[in-house]
Amino acid sequence: MARKKYVYFFGGGKAEGNAKMRNLLGGKGAGLAEMTNLGIPVPPGFTISTEACNEFYKNQKRYPEGMWDEVEENLSRLESLMGAKLGDPDNPLLVSVRSGARASMPGMMDTILNLGLNDQTVQGLIKRTGNERFAYDSYRRFITMFSSVVLDIDRSEFEKLLEEKKKEVGVKLDTELTAEDLKDLVKKYKALVKKKTGKDFPQDPKEQLRMAIGAVFNSWHNKRAIEYRRIYGIPEEWGTAANVQAMVFGNMGENSGTGVAFTRDPSTGEKVFYGDYLPNAQGEDVVAGIRTPQKITTLKDSHPEIYRQLEEVYQKLESHYRDMQDIEFTVQDGKLYMLQTRTGKRTALAAVKIAVDMVQEGLISKEEAIMRVEPDQLDQLLHPIFDPKAKVKPIAKGLPASPGAAVGKVVFSADRAKEWADKGEKVILVRPETSPEDIVGMYAAQGILTSRGGVTSHAAVVGRGMGKCCVVGCGAITIDEEAGQFTVDGIVVKEGDYISLNGNTGEVILGQVPLIQASLTGEFKTFMDWVDEIRTLGVRANADTPEDARIARNFGAEGIGLARTEHMFFGEDRIPWVRKMIMAEDDKTRKKSLEKLLPMQREDFIGIFKAMDGLPVTIRLLDPPLHEFLPNRDEILVKLTELRMELKRRLKADRKKQIQAQVEELEKTLKAIDNLREFNPMLGHRGCRLGISFPAISEMQVRAIFEAAVEVKKQGIKVFPEVMIPLTGTVEEMRITREDTVRVAEEVMREAGVRVDYLVGTMIEVPRAALIADKIAQYAEFFSFGTNDLTQMTFGYSRDDVGKFLPYYLEKKILKADPFATIDQEGVGELVKMATQKGRSARPNLKLGVCGEHGGDPASVEFFYQVGLNYVSCSPYRIPVARLAAAQARLKAEKEIAVSTSV
Amino acid sequence: MARKKYVYFFGGGKAEGNAKMRNLLGGKGAGLAEMTNLGIPVPPGFTISTEACNEFYKNQKRYPEGMWDEVEENLSRLESLMGAKLGDPDNPLLVSVRSGARASMPGMMDTILNLGLNDQTVQGLIKRTGNERFAYDSYRRFITMFSSVVLDIDRSEFEKLLEEKKKEVGVKLDTELTAEDLKDLVKKYKALVKKKTGKDFPQDPKEQLRMAIGAVFNSWHNKRAIEYRRIYGIPEEWGTAANVQAMVFGNMGENSGTGVAFTRDPSTGEKVFYGDYLPNAQGEDVVAGIRTPQKITTLKDSHPEIYRQLEEVYQKLESHYRDMQDIEFTVQDGKLYMLQTRTGKRTALAAVKIAVDMVQEGLISKEEAIMRVEPDQLDQLLHPIFDPKAKVKPIAKGLPASPGAAVGKVVFSADRAKEWADKGEKVILVRPETSPEDIVGMYAAQGILTSRGGVTSHAAVVGRGMGKCCVVGCGAITIDEEAGQFTVDGIVVKEGDYISLNGNTGEVILGQVPLIQASLTGEFKTFMDWVDEIRTLGVRANADTPEDARIARNFGAEGIGLARTEHMFFGEDRIPWVRKMIMAEDDKTRKKSLEKLLPMQREDFIGIFKAMDGLPVTIRLLDPPLHEFLPNRDEILVKLTELRMELKRRLKADRKKQIQAQVEELEKTLKAIDNLREFNPMLGHRGCRLGISFPAISEMQVRAIFEAAVEVKKQGIKVFPEVMIPLTGTVEEMRITREDTVRVAEEVMREAGVRVDYLVGTMIEVPRAALIADKIAQYAEFFSFGTNDLTQMTFGYSRDDVGKFLPYYLEKKILKADPFATIDQEGVGELVKMATQKGRSARPNLKLGVCGEHGGDPASVEFFYQVGLNYVSCSPYRIPVARLAAAQARLKAEKEIAVSTSV
Repeated sequence: MARKKYVYFFGGGKAEGNAKMRNLLGGKGAGLAEMTNLGIPVPPGFTISTEACNEFYKNQKRYPEGMWDEVEENLSRLESLMGAKLGDPDNPLLVSVRSGARASMPGMMDTILNLGLNDQTVQGLIKRTGNERFAYDSYRRFITMFSSVVLDIDRSEFEKLLEEKKKEVGVKLDTELTAEDLKDLVKKYKALVKKKTGKDFPQDPKEQLRMAIGAVFNSWHNKRAIEYRRIYGIPEEWGTAANVQAMVFGNMGENSGTGVAFTRDPSTGEKVFYGDYLPNAQGEDVVAGIRTPQKITTLKDSHPEIYRQLEEVYQKLESHYRDMQDIEFTVQDGKLYMLQTRTGKRTALAAVKIAVDMVQEGLISKEEAIMRVEPDQLDQLLHPIFDPKAKVKPIAKGLPASPGAAVGKVVFSADRAKEWADKGEKVILVRPETSPEDIVGMYAAQGILTSRGGVTSHAAVVGRGMGKCCVVGCGAITIDEEAGQFTVDGIVVKEGDYISLNGNTGEVILGQVPLIQASLTGEFKTFMDWVDEIRTLGVRANADTPEDARIARNFGAEGIGLARTEHMFFGEDRIPWVRKMIMAEDDKTRKKSLEKLLPMQREDFIGIFKAMDGLPVTIRLLDPPLHEFLPNRDEILVKLTELRMELKRRLKADRKKQIQAQVEELEKTLKAIDNLREFNPMLGHRGCRLGISFPAISEMQVRAIFEAAVEVKKQGIKVFPEVMIPLTGTVEEMRITREDTVRVAEEVMREAGVRVDYLVGTMIEVPRAALIADKIAQYAEFFSFGTNDLTQMTFGYSRDDVGKFLPYYLEKKILKADPFATIDQEGVGELVKMATQKGRSARPNLKLGVCGEHGGDPASVEFFYQVGLNYVSCSPYRIPVARLAAAQARLKAEKEIAVSTSV
Repeated sequence: MARKKYVYFFGGGKAEGNAKMRNLLGGKGAGLAEMTNLGIPVPPGFTISTEACNEFYKNQKRYPEGMWDEVEENLSRLESLMGAKLGDPDNPLLVSVRSGARASMPGMMDTILNLGLNDQTVQGLIKRTGNERFAYDSYRRFITMFSSVVLDIDRSEFEKLLEEKKKEVGVKLDTELTAEDLKDLVKKYKALVKKKTGKDFPQDPKEQLRMAIGAVFNSWHNKRAIEYRRIYGIPEEWGTAANVQAMVFGNMGENSGTGVAFTRDPSTGEKVFYGDYLPNAQGEDVVAGIRTPQKITTLKDSHPEIYRQLEEVYQKLESHYRDMQDIEFTVQDGKLYMLQTRTGKRTALAAVKIAVDMVQEGLISKEEAIMRVEPDQLDQLLHPIFDPKAKVKPIAKGLPASPGAAVGKVVFSADRAKEWADKGEKVILVRPETSPEDIVGMYAAQGILTSRGGVTSHAAVVGRGMGKCCVVGCGAITIDEEAGQFTVDGIVVKEGDYISLNGNTGEVILGQVPLIQASLTGEFKTFMDWVDEIRTLGVRANADTPEDARIARNFGAEGIGLARTEHMFFGEDRIPWVRKMIMAEDDKTRKKSLEKLLPMQREDFIGIFKAMDGLPVTIRLLDPPLHEFLPNRDEILVKLTELRMELKRRLKADRKKQIQAQVEELEKTLKAIDNLREFNPMLGHRGCRLGISFPAISEMQVRAIFEAAVEVKKQGIKVFPEVMIPLTGTVEEMRITREDTVRVAEEVMREAGVRVDYLVGTMIEVPRAALIADKIAQYAEFFSFGTNDLTQMTFGYSRDDVGKFLPYYLEKKILKADPFATIDQEGVGELVKMATQKGRSARPNLKLGVCGEHGGDPASVEFFYQVGLNYVSCSPYRIPVARLAAAQARLKAEKEIAVSTSV
């Protein structure tokens, strides 16, 4: 049996891997191989595959058999290509060891540079470069990285020694330290290692390499990486590759440097060079955001030759990958070397603009453009922005790293951000800089503000990835974390004070700036027009008010798929009548309350019909159990107990009488509540079960719908009501409610002398309804899958209680996804399919839609397209998301285009 | 188009109908036709079909077109056959008009005798018979019946006049009234009709006939009939036929009479003539139970010729129908006329004995015998009987009309019986005689005692039909309904006092006689042995205690299909530890409580394993949500509120401290309850979800099971534990819990050095589990359908709340049956089928059972047999029912034998 291949070489203009091998080589390894094959200057090296990493974990953290032999073979090849040898005291080869997973996980895993240095080879490096300062700078960096990553010594211990040294010699910047200073520092570093580990810093370069590769593999399971994977849903079983690559040095002087850049602006999508460049530095200095770097565009003037090389590489990469690239490079003594390329993460704004621009540049097709934008991401574009009419006076301005608007209370730590957000507060996380440890707090915050770092700093990259408004490098503010405040121009902003951030301009504003609705204009509009050209699945909105209906229409809703009439019952002017109606002891009293409610409901429907002029509106009859409308039982019980205690005391006669009356009233209410109370209200007396046992309620609602319809029709509005019966489980329920609905509708229209077209259909949300859908379809003109309830009943999960075990289930992977967020295709989806087939078999022109939360979830939308529904319905803000998901679903189904969005 | 035929003639040795036309002609009509064809003497006549009745209702109570013409044609035919004419003043034909539905509904609908009499024809009758007394007796009977049935005049008004007349002339019995007395009574009756209706009593016989037929049809919808159909599940759409038949007269003197009889004893099944005979009387006198009739066997001596005729007819009928018959007959002047034959209702005891006897007589096959007993009926044989060791001293003895034992509190009205039974009291209904109005009260009572009437009286017939212990004709007791007591030999028994009835002996005993378990002996054992020869579907028991297990085994259980471990948690010695375990704030405290529970659970299992030596025992791990084990929340809230009020007063320091401590304790408990409380516990944190999130609980249970198993095995007991995982919904749940179970089981067996064979399987009770059953079967060695929960989730009905609408749904026929009693084949059954197919596709030897309530329901058992399950499991008392249902299911499936049980 041929031995498994674990190591893939690249260099000398040819690579064993290529871009398609991302799963095996990781994003970085595949990118290096592809660039090598393209003839782009890449320092040679080799990639140890993700398979090796997975074997390593299966194998109690031992390298799989044969791997190390392959590493040694490839190392020899690298040595002969470079004409240098690892550990050669005269001509030492130095290498970097970097992790690289299938998906980008910025800053999550570990990197070691300058590996191969020891007390001998540092001398060789001096000899070869004639640059003692550079050699010792490299050595001290190597000891720091290796010790923190491999030997688990806290990085800050080394940083403390560095700061002490700077103080001692009286300089501010690392670059100001001399060779002598650095040489002394190396000595101190080694002593620290000896003290911490009881052993000398490892001097054997092969041993260094062996340990470093293991550390990279181990970093796949560090806490940060696990947390990151959880948030972004990256499977543990992917593993990481390790890349061993000949070092090139950005810290060889002023004609050297290192950069991190994007081929276009990842924040706005504009076609401009975008990124950071740090002269005389090594890569990690940029990402860590410690020194504020210069903008990459400044290279055009300062180093035109480097800029020219970059420009050439940019063009090659974009025309090859046909997408915006995120690159890392090092300039060694005026020559550009590429260290990484990958499809760049971008904001939704940028994703849309880049996609549209690239179509117009002829780089990609419209269909590809549509596949380029992650539907969920669009959400960012739909949320409110600052009201342009609001007069704002910024207190500071930083770099706009991720667009959007954010308003919230200032907090100074990730923990506090999480804690306050969990309580429902909106917060802005303010930090000098962010690090991977802050990820949970960043996720919880509305926006992020840092005082240091550039647009490719950790805060910026992660902020954009999350679609979170982010302003970085705002040097004007001085953060005093201990005092819980920041100051700017004498203004003191304390923890808990409101600020607003403008991620498009970088402005920081004191207080809460008013927000307005986003709108679909410019490239976004062009993009959504293309989406609609492709899309065949309809998109409707779940909207209960005229206001929601208008927002939905603005976002492209083609109708209302779910108007919940019960929400209308909670209005302050209504709830007393609703309660009277419920607690009525006879039909006459009940009717009287319903008569009061009728004109109010009619007005609701008039408003919605007007907002949706020309489009269908699906109105669901009353669904929740009646006890939901009654007052809180605990409060009544406590009050009652208190009054009863009171009665036991000696009281004046009229006071006693008064209390007794109150007690009686409360007892009556309590009794009414207890009469209606249910053990499992979700499975109780609700939906059409209510409509059937209290036909007067449905009758009032149907009357209100049709009175509204005929009235707006008289005013010239085009109205298409679709009356939807909730919770149907038997064919008789459907037959009876249908008949009742038609009777009242026809009555109203006859009275008014106006006819409107209408449909009567049902929710499919009880498993039994799906099982007998063919029979129900005899009486239903449309089905709308209520996938929320269908999920509850198919799983036997109460949505309100599932928090007791669902998080644990997700963590333990008993469930791959929250079935209330993404439809469970295997179980619930099977019922949807079944009902679709059965329903259409009985009524070929049956209209089919979905109105659960899943209607706005891209993965679910794709499934609903595949199943063959006519439309999905979702909340107004998810409409563009659903439109895009629907278009992508069609493209995927028809052409199976490889998905290459920016994730 | 040929006109529909509505009327079917019988007479002159030939009939247009036959026994197979029961649906069209009703039971009575079909029986009359069949007997006519058999050459048995039957007065000729014709039957108006049930179709006519249904048309009549569809048609706003008008006769369907052509029906009346057919009636007139058939009447002419009858007139010429009889040589008499309806309304002929010289030679009048008299007829009876009787209802007759497909199923027997004793006493529920109306009958009119002697129709055709008027002031002229009564003279003709006198002329023809020379018997003036008979003629006027017939006339006054006719007026009474016609007036009450057709003209809606209260029957008691006529009875009052009759009583007055008897008082006036100083006689006790109707038969003592003279022709003159009766003639005067007829005058008074006619005056009463005139007074009540404003019109004369109708004198036109054709008009009488037309009205009478309508009244019979109308009686299908009287209150009694509707109530009866509801109880016995008879569909409204069956309708009733009307039989018009030439009168024969049992009231023509001492050589005439009327009888109601069974070809065998319907109470015990013994092959003896059984029934009542009233000399010189018309039919309704027997059924009404007004005069206590003589036993039919006495005819042998008093009227040997009549007895001989009867004997001949009995033999003809039994060998023709091959089943016990229930007959009505009239003897006119020494000649026997049959008025009805039908398969006789019988007690379970009789059903079994008759079936076994008929096999032994060579009348029917074993298979037919098995089909002859209604499984549900067996229930009667399984309930406790009087302990033979108990010394009882009867206070009275009546006729044993329906066997069994009953103990309860005396009530004197049907209303009171219902009212008390609804409160959970066991009652004995004591009445002078019963009438159809009493049906609901009879249903609610444990047993029935009447002071009047024979073994074919209303109480006796209905009691046997319901399988209720019934003692009739207990003349020794004097009932004073107003005083609420009965007396016997100076003993006064008041409402609410306990009495016991022995339905096998007719004994009435004061107080509560101790009861013991029934057992399967004699013919019952023979019968059940035949059942088991045929049966292929296994029958197991749901039993949670060794005691239940023993009962189940006694009744033929082949294993335990469901032992619920949670019931064991509620024991007084356990609940404190269970609560401590639940409220534990850390694993250590939880473990400690579980250690206390372990030996108790082990003892439970040891007991069950011993009782089921040699048979498999399926043990379900903890299923209900933990809050079910916590104290009542309302009580705590009220107590807490009271204490808090108390604290507001001025109190001594130590009292205050004391109360504060109590408040804190209660707050802690309330918090614990609220932490666990769920909105929809049925869909909450229960079943395997508990076992997965608190693995220590399952571990304790599995350990207890296997420690018990190895211990009993050491004692020589054969033990086959089957560990059942509740509420599985995903394949991962099954995989994880299976692994945990196997781990602990192997550990225990290794420790003990003893191996036992065991299985690990799951309930299928969540719809999703049915949908992915193939995947679950990879890790499950058996499935047990939990059809209770499966029904809840498939319908979206909470079993605890369904009372809010289910009765209405059943009444309105939105549901045909309570889906918690009889499996819903269309919906829930579809999932069972699906899971069976999918499960077996993945694991061909998968063992499949059902352990919901449906396991003891005959219709459901038939379905489970058809689907191909291996066994059903039901409560111990339903085991023989399930065994019989399983055998019948096989016979039905294999031979499609026409069902001819005694219903």
